[in-house]
Amino acid sequence: MTNELFNRPIGVFDSGLGGLTAVKELRKLLPHEDIVYFGDTGRVPYGTKSRETILRYAQQDVDFLLTCKVKMILAACGTVSSNIPKDFARQLPVPFTGVVEHACDAAVKATKKRHIGIIATPSTIRSGAYEAHIHLIAPDIQVTAAPCSLFVPLVENGYIQQDNPVTRLVAQQYLAPLKQANPDTLILGCTHYPLLAPIISDIMGPEVTLIDSGQTAARYTAQYLQDHAMLCEPCRRGTNRFYVSDSTEGFADVAGIFLGSDIHGEVTRIHID
Amino acid sequence: MTNELFNRPIGVFDSGLGGLTAVKELRKLLPHEDIVYFGDTGRVPYGTKSRETILRYAQQDVDFLLTCKVKMILAACGTVSSNIPKDFARQLPVPFTGVVEHACDAAVKATKKRHIGIIATPSTIRSGAYEAHIHLIAPDIQVTAAPCSLFVPLVENGYIQQDNPVTRLVAQQYLAPLKQANPDTLILGCTHYPLLAPIISDIMGPEVTLIDSGQTAARYTAQYLQDHAMLCEPCRRGTNRFYVSDSTEGFADVAGIFLGSDIHGEVTRIHID
Repeated sequence: MTNELFNRPIGVFDSGLGGLTAVKELRKLLPHEDIVYFGDTGRVPYGTKSRETILRYAQQDVDFLLTCKVKMILAACGTVSSNIPKDFARQLPVPFTGVVEHACDAAVKATKKRHIGIIATPSTIRSGAYEAHIHLIAPDIQVTAAPCSLFVPLVENGYIQQDNPVTRLVAQQYLAPLKQANPDTLILGCTHYPLLAPIISDIMGPEVTLIDSGQTAARYTAQYLQDHAMLCEPCRRGTNRFYVSDSTEGFADVAGIFLGSDIHGEVTRIHID
Repeated sequence: MTNELFNRPIGVFDSGLGGLTAVKELRKLLPHEDIVYFGDTGRVPYGTKSRETILRYAQQDVDFLLTCKVKMILAACGTVSSNIPKDFARQLPVPFTGVVEHACDAAVKATKKRHIGIIATPSTIRSGAYEAHIHLIAPDIQVTAAPCSLFVPLVENGYIQQDNPVTRLVAQQYLAPLKQANPDTLILGCTHYPLLAPIISDIMGPEVTLIDSGQTAARYTAQYLQDHAMLCEPCRRGTNRFYVSDSTEGFADVAGIFLGSDIHGEVTRIHID
């Protein structure tokens, strides 16, 4: 790549707004980089749909980011990352990563009791991807997984306050088997879930380490770009461009919850299909 | 129309499976008719998306049903029905109806206290369509409306048991302003909501009449076909064909909850976009 190519943006996508938790971390680690984000808000959620549909949507999302001439793609979506075939990245003209491997690597490092919990969308849990990767690198580790079908709708509808009684009740139900199994490390296997981290942590207890899959994937992306001498010239402040497949109205408000109030950028609606 | 045209199927569609509550009623009223149903399960829900996106999806749904050579179309979706322009039906080669007017007509007939409640998706409530139609036919009636953003995800994820603590808690929150306003008639303005009718009725009390918008629209459709001499020849048992935009796997189980166990038909997946 020439220098010009290194100045291309990093592409990030998700079914909706969850992937913005990865953008937040990327922005912190790489202040000079341009970031292009696509959120498929017109078709969210992915995690309760079939693998075939998820892969079709993911291909369209990736194709769109390639038209934005990105230099690397981060699928900041647990559902896409856990369903995509292992050889998917090989067909692409730019490096590609999901969130599964990096969250698993961090969890394996963190666990002392050799017991990791996973919460994610039904489709992600069904795929077995997190469990498979953990056992690939550490076959002796015990894994307890639980699907949380309502977490994404709860987050997308703003049920995220720490004392929200509905979210607490739902979380208590989903986390009950994990409380009983008692892992010391819990992977938040969907990039929406960090917004529920205070509630999840309250229920699981302070001795359980939460692994934020969007954050660990962002750290990997930053490291990859650095290791491959693909970082942009550090002489400017990076920009953010956001694309969504539903209306842009209200995006800024909701995105602010994911990103923090100090990250801004132009928001454009596209037809992803 | 010739006799052959009258033997064409009735077309019904919804964002997901909610419209099957209308199919159930149609099947009861019109045992000889063929019914084609399309559920946009690959893009459900509609009710938390923008009007522009809803109308684009609705146009695709209608276009698909027209390729099935239906003789009439029922938009068995409160969100589509309340957002679609009034002149939409005029462009179509077959009669078209939504669910709004017929639920309002039934509610206006039912209310004794001249006070009607409406619960529906955020998009439907924002449209003001139910309220506008009630005031068109009965300007003196008081209307109290409440959006219920989580009811569709709760139903689509199977949280429908009468004693489900999550659904009860959510319903208590949504219905609190209605309990206080105290209407004697409540429109279930989304075709998913009849599956929550036992819980809603428990909370509102037995003196509140629930109006099922899918059921009243099905009754209108049956009456329309009869009044316009468009019923099929009554010499055979009608068939059901179901189309969905996500995987067909598991459709039969979930559809059975909406339809009752005695309604069957072929299920086919299509690409709606």
